[in-house]
Amino acid sequence: MKQRKILLTENEIPEKWYNIIADMPNKPLPPLHPGTKEPIGPEALAPLFPMALIEQEVTPEKWVDIPEEVRDVYKMWRPTPLYRAYNLEKALDTPAKIYYKYEGVSPSGSHKPNTAVPQAYYNMKEGVKKITTETGAGQWGSALAFACNMFDIACEVYMVKISYHHKPYRKVMMNTWGADVFASPTDLTEAGRKILAQDPDSPGSLGIAISEAVERAATDPDTKYSLGSVLNHVLLHQTVVGQEALVQMEKAGDMPDIVIAPFGGGSNFAGLSFPFLRLNLEEGKNIRCIASEPASCPKLTRGIFRYDFGDTVGMTPLLPMYTLGHNFVPAPIHAGGLRYHGAGVIVSQLLKDNLIEAIAHDNLEVFEAGVEFAKHEGIIPAPEATHAVATVFKEAQKCKEEGVSRTILFNLCGHGNFDMKAYEDYFAGSLVRHELTQDAIEASLAELDTPIPQ
Amino acid sequence: MKQRKILLTENEIPEKWYNIIADMPNKPLPPLHPGTKEPIGPEALAPLFPMALIEQEVTPEKWVDIPEEVRDVYKMWRPTPLYRAYNLEKALDTPAKIYYKYEGVSPSGSHKPNTAVPQAYYNMKEGVKKITTETGAGQWGSALAFACNMFDIACEVYMVKISYHHKPYRKVMMNTWGADVFASPTDLTEAGRKILAQDPDSPGSLGIAISEAVERAATDPDTKYSLGSVLNHVLLHQTVVGQEALVQMEKAGDMPDIVIAPFGGGSNFAGLSFPFLRLNLEEGKNIRCIASEPASCPKLTRGIFRYDFGDTVGMTPLLPMYTLGHNFVPAPIHAGGLRYHGAGVIVSQLLKDNLIEAIAHDNLEVFEAGVEFAKHEGIIPAPEATHAVATVFKEAQKCKEEGVSRTILFNLCGHGNFDMKAYEDYFAGSLVRHELTQDAIEASLAELDTPIPQ
Repeated sequence: MKQRKILLTENEIPEKWYNIIADMPNKPLPPLHPGTKEPIGPEALAPLFPMALIEQEVTPEKWVDIPEEVRDVYKMWRPTPLYRAYNLEKALDTPAKIYYKYEGVSPSGSHKPNTAVPQAYYNMKEGVKKITTETGAGQWGSALAFACNMFDIACEVYMVKISYHHKPYRKVMMNTWGADVFASPTDLTEAGRKILAQDPDSPGSLGIAISEAVERAATDPDTKYSLGSVLNHVLLHQTVVGQEALVQMEKAGDMPDIVIAPFGGGSNFAGLSFPFLRLNLEEGKNIRCIASEPASCPKLTRGIFRYDFGDTVGMTPLLPMYTLGHNFVPAPIHAGGLRYHGAGVIVSQLLKDNLIEAIAHDNLEVFEAGVEFAKHEGIIPAPEATHAVATVFKEAQKCKEEGVSRTILFNLCGHGNFDMKAYEDYFAGSLVRHELTQDAIEASLAELDTPIPQ
Repeated sequence: MKQRKILLTENEIPEKWYNIIADMPNKPLPPLHPGTKEPIGPEALAPLFPMALIEQEVTPEKWVDIPEEVRDVYKMWRPTPLYRAYNLEKALDTPAKIYYKYEGVSPSGSHKPNTAVPQAYYNMKEGVKKITTETGAGQWGSALAFACNMFDIACEVYMVKISYHHKPYRKVMMNTWGADVFASPTDLTEAGRKILAQDPDSPGSLGIAISEAVERAATDPDTKYSLGSVLNHVLLHQTVVGQEALVQMEKAGDMPDIVIAPFGGGSNFAGLSFPFLRLNLEEGKNIRCIASEPASCPKLTRGIFRYDFGDTVGMTPLLPMYTLGHNFVPAPIHAGGLRYHGAGVIVSQLLKDNLIEAIAHDNLEVFEAGVEFAKHEGIIPAPEATHAVATVFKEAQKCKEEGVSRTILFNLCGHGNFDMKAYEDYFAGSLVRHELTQDAIEASLAELDTPIPQ
């Protein structure tokens, strides 16, 4: 009888996170001060993050110990299962072997708690009383709410107002874990009050919510701020995903030729792919790692490599990244987690060095793939995850055309239980295919007056 | 380091279902014809169910083989994890050891696919082209939609109109798996048209939806009907839950003193408890099995043992059951899956013979327990599951008061991802405590003119 799931025991949860920086042939360029444009050191982050996380942000060490307290909370859902997608292979009539790592078994339903838990832990260890953050679709906010609750830290989430009203159930989920959730812009911050003075009915934006969360942390010594993607330490924490998958693939007696993951800021993709990239860098293996991004926000496939701000208003350090420009406003696709203008620094350098690949899919193609996946494998994927599914379909089709069996592994990073409105819109035919013109991209990039990486 | 989860491999999915009828000291009394009031045989069910299920409904065999095709689909989520609730034990400061079997990992998020899958399978084997059913809250409808999709059978779900509008995401979930979902009453059936003629704005009811689904099956030779609880074969299928839990408890080096599960029609409770009751019946063990029901629908704790109809209009065979009367209308609590006037025949006989216990909890008590559970164990329970959690709290408190450590096992039968509205109402303070007067129960029971079991 065929085995559908490859499971690991709790003892097999990784004991260290993998830091790919140690193995990169070209290290990431330093961040620059937003004003002086001079390189800055880690101390610039001290008002916002605890020291342990700042150290992880810049460490050259290849392996970073995972504290026992963090591994103990990971056990609430980790190790996550690795599935062989027999039904899907049959339906696609492909010689490819398809595996997926399923991160939707976490309490909040995605891979996000993998970093939320250690972030909350290190804050707790350093006596932080409250963590603030922003959230759009709500995946990150709910992961941090869960994590803070586990370590008895208060959690304050600035949720983009339009999402707050469109996704009330994500808010209730955060409340259940004890977090305070505010519809941003609020009158609790200078940044929020300024926006509200201009436009009392502002629907909010991720940029505004970031400003509010950062302001709260910067102005209260007992409060820190937390980010769910992009930064090095966030990517580091997510490598538990790929490390487990590597052991599971070995147990299945198999090894991926292709590793695929959705791409927003980079933590999802990094989590699954970096432990496999390690094999390329260390042992000269040739595993293709493909980042799947939305065609409406194609920083990897159509952006440029340039210093740019992490936020919209230009307050963060300048980072060397693939970007569409910090003023780029992506179309309001349902995959809210992928609507970010730039790519994290490490992933950007890897792409520049041709060590990874990227592909973009439009918003109808991904739901078509998501529904097919649900019909054959049962699990309804989160809109973010459907991007990886669409790439899998492409590669499986290629295998069929070429008559070659390749082994494909992808990150099913979350379930769609809180995203059924997106599926409803898809079935109702009310999703419009978003076309992004070259003119629109060039117009956004033309506004950039930031330094060009040397 | 403590182990939180006890996992099994796919090879450890049970190979047989356990039929408790074989071990019952007093066998259930026969069903009666609704008109003649004479005992009827299984052939009366032939227009609605495939022969294989009718045979399982009446079989005296103790063990029933699970087909390999069914076990193969079970592997998509089974075996489900058994959790030791360390965090909860600590929070409750109890000497009790608390374990829970988590059925929310299934594609539709509850234990319901355990019976939906074999039901769809046997229908497929006998050439059935379509299955109809009713659903209230949507748990059962989505489980059957998933199962039918796996075996390429069409699925038609009559969803109570008010739920259809209040729970659109359950509907979309069913659509994703290819099911047709209709807001009942519809104009597709005689029963529906009759109701609509009287009241075009009828919000529908489970009774009406059952009538519509049954009518469709009875009037089309290629279509059968499917029920998600109450009947013997449904309870039989659910015993995979308790059989797995028994092996997992043994692996944990433990054995429950108390087994607790939510109670609607009986399949949830039977699934976890019957394999433990077997030890009582076979080996003289003394494991307490407690059914947790809502105080607003207390058939086990305040109903009477009497022949009664399974439906509201009185078309089904008369069954010997604990009942509040088939005209009893439970308050509109959020635990839609527990709003049924009667208890399945097997469970009713077991309660009559004092082989199991029952307890009722009010609708505020259960959410209080559910939120506490979510805070400590991460998973947000379905409203049905919170009833079992409330019973666990009671028993854990007793252990503390008596200074005795008992081992408690309960069925966390589903997650609450589609029920966040219920939590929102709870947090908003808009849930009203439902009081059910003795007069209301007696008035409903006084209407019964059905036979008294001898």
